[in-house]
Amino acid sequence: MQRITGVLAPVVTPFNADLAPDPIRLLSHCRWLLSHNVGLAVFGTNSEGNSLSVEEKIDLLDYLVTNGVSPARMMPGTGCSALLDSVRLTAHAVKLGCAGVLMLPPFYYKAVSDEGLFRSFAEVIERVGDSRLRIYLYNIPPVSQVAITIALIERLLKAYPGIIAGAKDSSGDWENTRAYLDNFGDQGFDVFPGSESFLLQGLRHGGAGCISATANANPESIARLFATWQTSDAEAQQLRLDKVRGIFASYPMIPALKAAIAHYSGNESWTTVRPPLVELTKEQMTALVSELDRAGFRMAGLIA
Amino acid sequence: MQRITGVLAPVVTPFNADLAPDPIRLLSHCRWLLSHNVGLAVFGTNSEGNSLSVEEKIDLLDYLVTNGVSPARMMPGTGCSALLDSVRLTAHAVKLGCAGVLMLPPFYYKAVSDEGLFRSFAEVIERVGDSRLRIYLYNIPPVSQVAITIALIERLLKAYPGIIAGAKDSSGDWENTRAYLDNFGDQGFDVFPGSESFLLQGLRHGGAGCISATANANPESIARLFATWQTSDAEAQQLRLDKVRGIFASYPMIPALKAAIAHYSGNESWTTVRPPLVELTKEQMTALVSELDRAGFRMAGLIA
Repeated sequence: MQRITGVLAPVVTPFNADLAPDPIRLLSHCRWLLSHNVGLAVFGTNSEGNSLSVEEKIDLLDYLVTNGVSPARMMPGTGCSALLDSVRLTAHAVKLGCAGVLMLPPFYYKAVSDEGLFRSFAEVIERVGDSRLRIYLYNIPPVSQVAITIALIERLLKAYPGIIAGAKDSSGDWENTRAYLDNFGDQGFDVFPGSESFLLQGLRHGGAGCISATANANPESIARLFATWQTSDAEAQQLRLDKVRGIFASYPMIPALKAAIAHYSGNESWTTVRPPLVELTKEQMTALVSELDRAGFRMAGLIA
Repeated sequence: MQRITGVLAPVVTPFNADLAPDPIRLLSHCRWLLSHNVGLAVFGTNSEGNSLSVEEKIDLLDYLVTNGVSPARMMPGTGCSALLDSVRLTAHAVKLGCAGVLMLPPFYYKAVSDEGLFRSFAEVIERVGDSRLRIYLYNIPPVSQVAITIALIERLLKAYPGIIAGAKDSSGDWENTRAYLDNFGDQGFDVFPGSESFLLQGLRHGGAGCISATANANPESIARLFATWQTSDAEAQQLRLDKVRGIFASYPMIPALKAAIAHYSGNESWTTVRPPLVELTKEQMTALVSELDRAGFRMAGLIA
């Protein structure tokens, strides 16, 4: 199967008033993203993926695939803190034919060693035991507090070539992303910066695209830069992307993305987040939308 | 039901070579702890509780209770990062008649607000919907990275008096433990320092006992100080406890506890930990045991 590349969104998860996930709105949002050539990294950090149980995630995955979403466009997050949870969810994603999985290291214990992390990933790989598995290592130390080091990647690539397919780097540190690219870019290891702020820079250094929260709200423009990064317009496009990103990033990201979708789709249910997150205040929502409007931002074709 | 107090151990979880939990050795270790008047905070941080799935924890709880372990002596850890996991595990513990549950806040997202944490605990309480529920809030910022503030406890106590029964404070900061005691000690809020290093100091300020990793290895002496803290010997006892604690704390705690149990029980299987943790090296084990022996440390009556 061809490797998944390009722009992916850690798809935000819509909840009903009782905090149950709403598969219908999720499907609709996924279709909208796909229509703009944005792939689906469901159950990422911005999906509130770790606020969902394994059962909820399996049910949602099944619902999407049953309803025609192509698993070849999906890279679900499957790294949990408990070993068997990661194994179960990863095996299910592979069985459904997902292009890959985005795997957090176990994230409860801190200051763990590369040896311990190597064993964690190795256990999942051995137990899933399927050559179709493609793992994208998820480096997001600001949240997980557990980093994926160069030495760990080196060891994993050597032990599981082909299976270890790449990484999402949400360190927010270009030097780290560049070190991933410089060290492993020529070994079939696809590096996705965790924000479109690094999309052009990443592509110029051999990056595979990006997996970015704001692709939930601004998919068309981000995907356009990916498609046209070698044109003379690329720098100007990147600046415009940075402007929109900057607006969202000045609010708590997940509630802000949901507030924007709620506003532009006209469906207020979208504002709901699961605890421990909290939705934006009315004042924040008004300010966000006003900033977005002033920047000429639109979300065309959204279905409530 | 009478409140659980005294000394509790976050019971270490024995694993077989295939990393499956071994219920038989767990039962044996629980019985040994109970025989020394140490209660059972199974599925705590030192139990590798967050490396176990909800199913594994439910199965182990059922096994212990079915085999005669009194739920009145149990305070299982039930706080997970996913809402429904916390609800399911907590409801099960209440159904079994456990004296209380030790509840971590959701621990994936960082820099969350007290409002978000209040909603998290409130959702679990409302969904479990059982007046027998007794929640001990688990403050362990060095690991969870999510603190239980005074303001949060105040609000929870007001909304759920009786249900919010106390806290384990593993901040390692006596000033924080003391603030819990000073603010809420007279409101039926039982405070357990997270280490026996603060046992005597805690009891002198109205603490309820302690919940400490090293109670897995040194239960008799720690329980003795709890029973005799008002005698003239208390300070000398505390110094002896600190000495043993200091030895364990100079190694990675969980592997060190398991290494000691393996050595003194003669069952090497006890050394096994789940990734991302790593067992002690042979050299570390030898050094640990030699230090413990020199300090006159023993674990009498352990069953392999």
